[in-house]
Amino acid sequence: MNLEDKLASLLGEQGWIGAADSAAWRRDWLNKFGELPLGVARPKSIAEVSAVLKLCAAVEVPVVPQGGNTSLAGAAVLGSKGGVILSLSRMDKIGEVDKAGGTITVGAGVVLANLHEQLDGSGLMFPLHIGAEGSAQIGGLIGTNAGGSHAFRYGMMQDLVLGLEVVLPDGTVWDGMRRVQKDNSGYQLRKLFCGAEGTLGVVTRAVLKLLPAPIAETTCLLAVPDMAAAIEVAAQCRAKAGEFLSALEFFSDVGLDMALLNIPDLSFPLQQRSSFYILVEAGAGSPQVPIEAIFFEILEDCFSIGLVVDGAIAMSKAQRNAFWRIREEQPEGQRLEGEQLKHDLSVPPQLLGDFLERASSECQSILKGVRINPFGHLGDGNVHYNLSPPIGQKGFFGLEKTFALRLGRLANEMGGSYAAEHGLGRAKVALADQLRDPVERELMARLKSAFDEKGNLNPGVIVEIPRRRLQ
Amino acid sequence: MNLEDKLASLLGEQGWIGAADSAAWRRDWLNKFGELPLGVARPKSIAEVSAVLKLCAAVEVPVVPQGGNTSLAGAAVLGSKGGVILSLSRMDKIGEVDKAGGTITVGAGVVLANLHEQLDGSGLMFPLHIGAEGSAQIGGLIGTNAGGSHAFRYGMMQDLVLGLEVVLPDGTVWDGMRRVQKDNSGYQLRKLFCGAEGTLGVVTRAVLKLLPAPIAETTCLLAVPDMAAAIEVAAQCRAKAGEFLSALEFFSDVGLDMALLNIPDLSFPLQQRSSFYILVEAGAGSPQVPIEAIFFEILEDCFSIGLVVDGAIAMSKAQRNAFWRIREEQPEGQRLEGEQLKHDLSVPPQLLGDFLERASSECQSILKGVRINPFGHLGDGNVHYNLSPPIGQKGFFGLEKTFALRLGRLANEMGGSYAAEHGLGRAKVALADQLRDPVERELMARLKSAFDEKGNLNPGVIVEIPRRRLQ
Repeated sequence: MNLEDKLASLLGEQGWIGAADSAAWRRDWLNKFGELPLGVARPKSIAEVSAVLKLCAAVEVPVVPQGGNTSLAGAAVLGSKGGVILSLSRMDKIGEVDKAGGTITVGAGVVLANLHEQLDGSGLMFPLHIGAEGSAQIGGLIGTNAGGSHAFRYGMMQDLVLGLEVVLPDGTVWDGMRRVQKDNSGYQLRKLFCGAEGTLGVVTRAVLKLLPAPIAETTCLLAVPDMAAAIEVAAQCRAKAGEFLSALEFFSDVGLDMALLNIPDLSFPLQQRSSFYILVEAGAGSPQVPIEAIFFEILEDCFSIGLVVDGAIAMSKAQRNAFWRIREEQPEGQRLEGEQLKHDLSVPPQLLGDFLERASSECQSILKGVRINPFGHLGDGNVHYNLSPPIGQKGFFGLEKTFALRLGRLANEMGGSYAAEHGLGRAKVALADQLRDPVERELMARLKSAFDEKGNLNPGVIVEIPRRRLQ
Repeated sequence: MNLEDKLASLLGEQGWIGAADSAAWRRDWLNKFGELPLGVARPKSIAEVSAVLKLCAAVEVPVVPQGGNTSLAGAAVLGSKGGVILSLSRMDKIGEVDKAGGTITVGAGVVLANLHEQLDGSGLMFPLHIGAEGSAQIGGLIGTNAGGSHAFRYGMMQDLVLGLEVVLPDGTVWDGMRRVQKDNSGYQLRKLFCGAEGTLGVVTRAVLKLLPAPIAETTCLLAVPDMAAAIEVAAQCRAKAGEFLSALEFFSDVGLDMALLNIPDLSFPLQQRSSFYILVEAGAGSPQVPIEAIFFEILEDCFSIGLVVDGAIAMSKAQRNAFWRIREEQPEGQRLEGEQLKHDLSVPPQLLGDFLERASSECQSILKGVRINPFGHLGDGNVHYNLSPPIGQKGFFGLEKTFALRLGRLANEMGGSYAAEHGLGRAKVALADQLRDPVERELMARLKSAFDEKGNLNPGVIVEIPRRRLQ
C-alpha cells in the first residue's frame, strides 16, 4: 500500500481527504501560500495523530499541522507539493471547567470563541482575544504563541498554558499535562512548544489557566490629537487604573477612513474625528471597585488638558461591541481597499510615537505617497503597520521586501521585534535571516534538528534546515 | 601556559581565585554538594565571561555558573573535581529604571534585594520575592526559574524576563536583549534559558519587566482549623479580592512549634494556636480601591462560619514584617531542629488538603512518627514538604530516597510536579530519572546536546548526558 492508502485505511472516510478534495485546507488565510498536498489527515484521537506521524516519517513525507488556518504568516500550509496536511479540527473536546483550580483541559481543535462561550456564566474566563477567534483553534494559538488585545494584562499563550500533550515527529507522545503553575522539573518544554509553529511537535491537548471573569467592566473609545497624546493617556490610565486595564488599543484616522468607506454597515460612534483613536477597557473582579468613577476621573483630567478631543464610555453591551467592531474592522477595511503590505512589529510601548514618526519617513522615502495604516496594541507596543499603495496606484513596484526589511530593522534598533505576534511562518523566514543575529539563527536550527532530526515536520517554517534523507 | 595561568592572566587578581582559596564558593547552601575546583573565575564583563568559556571549552574543563549560591538542589557547584566555578557576582550593574516602559536592565550578579531597594520610591516594583532574596542573584534566579511567594499573581521568573544576553558553552554570545513582551520571531529562547540551570548557556544580563507598586496594601495572618478551611478561605479571598491578592502562604503548627522553640527572638502575633496558619497579602494600584474594607468583609464572613479561629490585620510596616517573618523562619526553625529532608512539590492548589492527607499516610507508613512540616504557597499549590525524624531519633534510617520517590509519585499522580520551584540541580537528577517519562528525559537530553554538544557546561545538572571528548 502507498501512504495515501494507508492513511485512508487508518483514518476512515471522515478522516482522510484526498488531494482532489483538499481545496478548503490547501491555501493560507491570505491566499499567498500552500501547495497541493497528498491529502488532508483529520484524526480524531491522539493515537491517530501518532499513527499519521509515524507513517509519514517512515517514508519521509512532510507533515504540516493545521488548526483554524488563520495564520497571517503562512505557517499552516505546505511549502512544496506532496506533503500531508494534518488538521486537528476534529480534536475539539472541551473538558469540564475546574472551577476551584481555575483550569480547563481542551483539545487542540477547540475554536477559541467556543471556549469563551463554554465559560460564559462560570465566573471564569480564558483571557486571550484575537480578531480571528471565531476560527482560530487552541493548537494553532499555542503554535503561534498568540497575543492579541488583552495580552499586556493577562499574557500571551505561553503565559496561559500549564500543561501540554505533544506528538513528536516520529509519532512518540510527550505527556506534559500537568495542572500547576510551578513546575521546574527540567527544561521548560511547555514554553518551548508555544511559538514553535508546529515545527517541533504537534500539540494535541492542553491544560489552560483560567482567570476570574471581571464583575464590573468599562470600555471607552477616545479620539486623541496625536500619538504622543495617546501615549500620555495610556500612562494616565496605567497610573490610576493600572491593574484593571485589560485592553489599550489604537487605530488611526487613515484606517478609520478605509473602514467606513469599504464596510457598508459600519458607523463611527463619536462626534469628532481626529488623527488617532484609542479603545480602553478595564475590568475589576470586586464589586467594591468603583471602576466607572475611576475612569470618569481619568477622562475628565485628560479632556481638561487637551489629551482627548472626544470620547464615550460604553453604556451597554451593544455599545461596547460597536466600539470593538470599529477597532477590529481595521484589517478588513484595508483589505477591501485593494493590495496591501502587512507588518507585525513591536517596540517598547512608550516609543510608539517615535516609531511611527521614523517609520513614516522611511516609508515615504521608499515610495512617496504610500498610505500608512498603523493600528494595534498600545498596551504592549505591538503595531500592525500596514501599507496601501499611493492613491491611484495598484501596487508597490516590487518594493515589498525593502519595506519589510527597513521596518524590521527599525523595530530591532528600538529594542523591539520584527515579528511580534503573528510569528514567522513561511512568509518571514527569509526576512528573519536578514534580520536575526546568525547566533540566534544557529540556536534555532539546532533546536529544530534536536526535535526533528530529519526535518519532516512543517519544513521551511521558522528556520530552514536541510532535510536529511534516510541512510 | 596551563588553564589556571591563562585564566589568572585574563582575569587579574580580583578575577581569579585559586583552588586553595575557593572555600567560599565550593560548597552548596545546604553543604551537601561541591567538589574542589581548579579555581573560581570572577569576570567583570561579558567579554571576560566569553573568554573564560572559550578557554575552558578548548581543554574540555567543565564550568559551573554560580550566582548567590543559594540553590537548594546543588545546581551551582561542581559534581566532580577539577572544573571551574564561574561566579557572576561582579557583574552587578543595575541600569536606569525605564519608568515609562516599565523595564530595567540588570547584570546577572545583581542581588534581588538590591534590585528591590533600587526601585523603592520609583512607583515601580519587581514583584519576585523569595526567602533567599538577600543573597540570590538575578542570573541564578533566571537559571532556576524562581517562583516564590508572589508568583501566582505576578508570575515566575520566566514570566518576568523580556530580554536576555547569554554566553553559549563555546563562548559565543547570544544577544536577545529585547524590551518587548511580544516577540514571536522564532523559538522562545528567552523562555528556554529560564530554568535551564546554567546547563545551556551563561546568562550575563537581562531586561526585566517591572510593575506598578501597590498604593494600598493589606497583610493578614490567620489561624485556621485545618487545611480544608485554609483552602476555603483562599477561595473566598479569590472570589472577593481576586485581582488584588498578591500572596497566599501557609504553614503548620508543627513548623510554628519548631520555629518558636529554636529561634530565640521570634514571637507569635496571634492569641490562639491552631493546626494551620495562612498569610494573606493584597495590594491595589488605585487609591480608590477600599482594600481594607474588602478584607474586613472577607474575614468577618470567614470568622462567622468558623473558617478562621483567630486573625489579625497588620496595622504597621513592623507588624507586616513580623507576620512575614513567622512564615519565612519556617525553614530555619526546622534546620535548627537537626537533620531534615526537604521536598519541593506542587499540586493543583485546591487539592492541597487531599495531598497533605495522602502524603501523611505515605510518610507514616514509611517511618512511623516522622514529623511532617508542610509550608509554602497556598496560592499556587507549591508545598515545601519537609520532614524531621521521629522525636528522640536523629536520622531517617536510609529511607531518604523512599520518601522522595513516593512523595514525587504522589505529586505526579495528582497533576503536579515533583520539582516545583527549586529545580533539579544535581540533587534530584537521579530521582527525576525515576519519575519522569523516558520521552521527557530524551527531549531534555537532546536539548542539552543541541546547546552544549560536549557537555562541558554544568554537567550532571537537569539531565546526565555522556560528555563527548574532542576527536
